[in-house]
Amino acid sequence: MSERFARTPKPPYYAVIFANQRTPGDDGYGATADRMVELASQQPGFLGIESTRDEAGFGITVSYWESEAAIAAWRADAEHADARRDGRERWYEHFELRVARVERAYGGPARRGEGA
Amino acid sequence: MSERFARTPKPPYYAVIFANQRTPGDDGYGATADRMVELASQQPGFLGIESTRDEAGFGITVSYWESEAAIAAWRADAEHADARRDGRERWYEHFELRVARVERAYGGPARRGEGA
Repeated sequence: MSERFARTPKPPYYAVIFANQRTPGDDGYGATADRMVELASQQPGFLGIESTRDEAGFGITVSYWESEAAIAAWRADAEHADARRDGRERWYEHFELRVARVERAYGGPARRGEGA
Repeated sequence: MSERFARTPKPPYYAVIFANQRTPGDDGYGATADRMVELASQQPGFLGIESTRDEAGFGITVSYWESEAAIAAWRADAEHADARRDGRERWYEHFELRVARVERAYGGPARRGEGA
């Protein structure tokens, strides 16, 4: 399995779904984005992250967390708060953020002849 | 706002988070993917979809639904079932699918001086 998939436990757990349109140019975004993944990964309750972006700059990042409390603690991190401010001011033309409780999950493909 | 964002109502509603790694080549994928978006959009309880994929073929698609029942009905659609079979057999090297209940949501950016 690619390292790009999050290795999450059995549900329930929480997902932060962050859909966003980047402004043109890097403007410090790449380094901060890498740092935020590094920092989030060290947070208590962090379960994993999946992220991708197309050539038009439209990206979706989903981070997974044990609990709402873990999400709230990450939100309170000072360096993360600074990055969110820069995001609003410089990096994102628009974003939509949704917090969701994962109820069920499965992976694949399970092909014919390989069992369920 | 870009048309790439789903115009979802106030929570609660449901999200199907589909992270996937494509196999190389198109092999009929593009046309079927477009058709599935068209077909999903016509389903009762469909709220919207956000989707992106990078140059390495790693994609995330999140579709939004009014209820678990709406997701189950879409899953039971015969043409969709055929497409999922092709996905498992030909189009996806790996995927992770998660069904989640969206609890809260907000959009941005709300920049300084523009209010909350």
